[in-house]
Amino acid sequence: MPDVLESLVSLCKRRGFIFQSSEIYGGVGSVWDYGPLGIELKRNLQDRWWKSMVRARDDIEGLDSGILMHPRVWEASGHVGGFVDPLVDCKNCKRRFRADEPTIKGTPGAPDAQCPSCGMKGTLSEPRQFNMMFKTFMGPVEETAAVVYLRPETAQGTYVNFLNVQQSMRKKIPFGIAQIGKAFRNEITPGNFIFRTREFEQMEMQFFVEPGTDMQWFDYWREERMLWHRGLGLREDRLRFYDQRKDELAHYARAASDIQFDFGGSLGFAEIEGVHNRGDFDLARHQEFSGKKLEYFDQPNNRRFLPFVVETAVGPNRTLLALLVSAYREEIVEGEAEGRTVLGFHPALAPVKAGVFPLVKKDGMPEMAEKIAADLRKQFPVFYDESGAIGRRYRRQDEIGTPYCVTVDGQSSVDGTVTIRDRDTLAQERVAAERLGEVIAARIAAG
Amino acid sequence: MPDVLESLVSLCKRRGFIFQSSEIYGGVGSVWDYGPLGIELKRNLQDRWWKSMVRARDDIEGLDSGILMHPRVWEASGHVGGFVDPLVDCKNCKRRFRADEPTIKGTPGAPDAQCPSCGMKGTLSEPRQFNMMFKTFMGPVEETAAVVYLRPETAQGTYVNFLNVQQSMRKKIPFGIAQIGKAFRNEITPGNFIFRTREFEQMEMQFFVEPGTDMQWFDYWREERMLWHRGLGLREDRLRFYDQRKDELAHYARAASDIQFDFGGSLGFAEIEGVHNRGDFDLARHQEFSGKKLEYFDQPNNRRFLPFVVETAVGPNRTLLALLVSAYREEIVEGEAEGRTVLGFHPALAPVKAGVFPLVKKDGMPEMAEKIAADLRKQFPVFYDESGAIGRRYRRQDEIGTPYCVTVDGQSSVDGTVTIRDRDTLAQERVAAERLGEVIAARIAAG
Repeated sequence: MPDVLESLVSLCKRRGFIFQSSEIYGGVGSVWDYGPLGIELKRNLQDRWWKSMVRARDDIEGLDSGILMHPRVWEASGHVGGFVDPLVDCKNCKRRFRADEPTIKGTPGAPDAQCPSCGMKGTLSEPRQFNMMFKTFMGPVEETAAVVYLRPETAQGTYVNFLNVQQSMRKKIPFGIAQIGKAFRNEITPGNFIFRTREFEQMEMQFFVEPGTDMQWFDYWREERMLWHRGLGLREDRLRFYDQRKDELAHYARAASDIQFDFGGSLGFAEIEGVHNRGDFDLARHQEFSGKKLEYFDQPNNRRFLPFVVETAVGPNRTLLALLVSAYREEIVEGEAEGRTVLGFHPALAPVKAGVFPLVKKDGMPEMAEKIAADLRKQFPVFYDESGAIGRRYRRQDEIGTPYCVTVDGQSSVDGTVTIRDRDTLAQERVAAERLGEVIAARIAAG
Repeated sequence: MPDVLESLVSLCKRRGFIFQSSEIYGGVGSVWDYGPLGIELKRNLQDRWWKSMVRARDDIEGLDSGILMHPRVWEASGHVGGFVDPLVDCKNCKRRFRADEPTIKGTPGAPDAQCPSCGMKGTLSEPRQFNMMFKTFMGPVEETAAVVYLRPETAQGTYVNFLNVQQSMRKKIPFGIAQIGKAFRNEITPGNFIFRTREFEQMEMQFFVEPGTDMQWFDYWREERMLWHRGLGLREDRLRFYDQRKDELAHYARAASDIQFDFGGSLGFAEIEGVHNRGDFDLARHQEFSGKKLEYFDQPNNRRFLPFVVETAVGPNRTLLALLVSAYREEIVEGEAEGRTVLGFHPALAPVKAGVFPLVKKDGMPEMAEKIAADLRKQFPVFYDESGAIGRRYRRQDEIGTPYCVTVDGQSSVDGTVTIRDRDTLAQERVAAERLGEVIAARIAAG
């Protein structure tokens, strides 16, 4: 794991961003819980996507389909047959590996192949296909007829609802359907903190277009999505496109471009979003498997056709990790012995918008500061803190990325002003306490 | 199913609130997908809960724990051993029933017991215990060691993170931890539309208090939660408490009060939220099963103890159904032949805040109306509609609960004013187009 990720795992646990799932029971493989600050950061990120993709546009509608779906959905999508990883296991130590695991020496199944765990030769099995969908049983008995899967992606829930959404909302092509939700993949080698996990979230949008216009829309969304990530404050030098070559494309894709972020260390540049031209593959398959026509009726031209789909698929957990990596910095502060750790989040994304402190615990300062905190809390999350030296309280807020700190001092009771300190510039200004809500809101909006 | 639920199932599908999951494949038992309007309504409801329970308070923190947890969690909680329904099956027709199914005549297992489906006597088995947790397998093979469960409630994810949250956020008792998330129960008899489903959402808050103060906090939260439901606009005459008698309490509960809503028809009054005094049952069990101390350290008094827990547990899907039932009305409009169907949602919860129409499709009215719609869309969801008679367009918005309709007419190009129509009073007023955003925002806030 890259160094900055290691620092982040520790900071995230200590400061309430991310905890290992079921930690008191020794943890559960590759599932993470979001603590008080992590869930605020995630909500801010997801709300921002929802607002820009759904609420601010007239050509995209929202959807929220179930995690459990009819099993035929996954036959049609190709996941039952094709969503597989080749696995090998060691007859000696019983451990399992992906067949393409680079630490395996030799060809699995051959006598010279060496187990990367126990070191024995000739004990690795031939690769077997392993489906990455989690399966469960619906209804009172476990039998084949009752098998259902935890969805490995939200997109299929959108395709099977294409006509429901189009008709109920009377949409004309081109239009999109967006959803945010959980998906599950039984990964063999999860890792890199929240980068690859078995339970994760997706923010996916399927844009339905007339065939022939699909590459224009692909180009449009490729650019739009990169602008969105830049707007989050992700550092530009750490973002890039990776356009897939023809021979790299999934069988259903006509074109695909990844938006990658440089996480540093051994992970390096890795995908945080994929933009895909999926053609009419999915709708055609669902039409075939369900026996229901899924064609769009183009009224002005009196013709029916299957639309093509351009998909934008973000991993919010990965994007959240990118935000943490991008925001993390350790700094020396001029004239101070101790350095500081800062999460320099975009103010609109920061989980806490303002720290509010009395300079000292006397002279009515705590009362005034508590009142200010209570007032500001009506607008956004604030953190009241009266314990420890003021410098230490500033550091605590820097470390969780709070953009503004408000301090009530001796002058406050005289003229009703307080200081407001900027996390990044460290500049302090005096502001009338009663104007704080408006001042901070304006700075967040401009940030 | 009560009549109003039947009308709602149809309206919800037709107007994009709720679709049956995987409908093109014949549907999947008791899972529902939220369409464009349904997800906006659900988001508004969940955001309102989050804002009032987490962001507006300084004594509750948010959390978002995983659906997949360590299997020992469910042994400690009692779900592996106790979360069971007794089932019987018919040897003749192979159908399964809950043992307490009222249509079964006689005692299952006895020769005179009659199958409610095929009518045969003596074919019903003795009751067998059936666990309602969905199970799946994590890792590459299906074996007992790899069994994990889909959580049947979010609460346990909170208990196992109690110390993580308390310590990282430096909370002092009393304080709460709130989360919104999906849960899964393999119900034998789901039904009543979205009232009882196998995949559903929860909005749960666990409030950790000093033992001895638990009944005061129980009373506090019982009242607070009822006020919250009233604030949603749920009709007061349809809301009531049901205080459980001692002999009705779950084994872990010291007191429990349900908030019930009258759904009408055969469903009648049914629980939409439960407020429970769980004592220290859960923390004590997790302490025992994990071997990790979960005591709170009370610094001023230098003592350690297990807090008691008061839980508030809302079903947002049920509350959303209550909102639909409460809002639904069919009305005769004076002087008009056709009646209208209205969803009279609280304006803050309505999925679309404003419909925007040109009176006719000429004289620059569509252009002006489109510009108004685009401006308003920056603030909240709006629906632009230019097709059909104006009366019909009003009706379409009434049916989805849009509180305000804005119409651009002949006078608009002359003096820059438009009409704004109120969904409930049908009153129309002229307002300067440029002030619309502010006028509508003020009405939503006051609504």
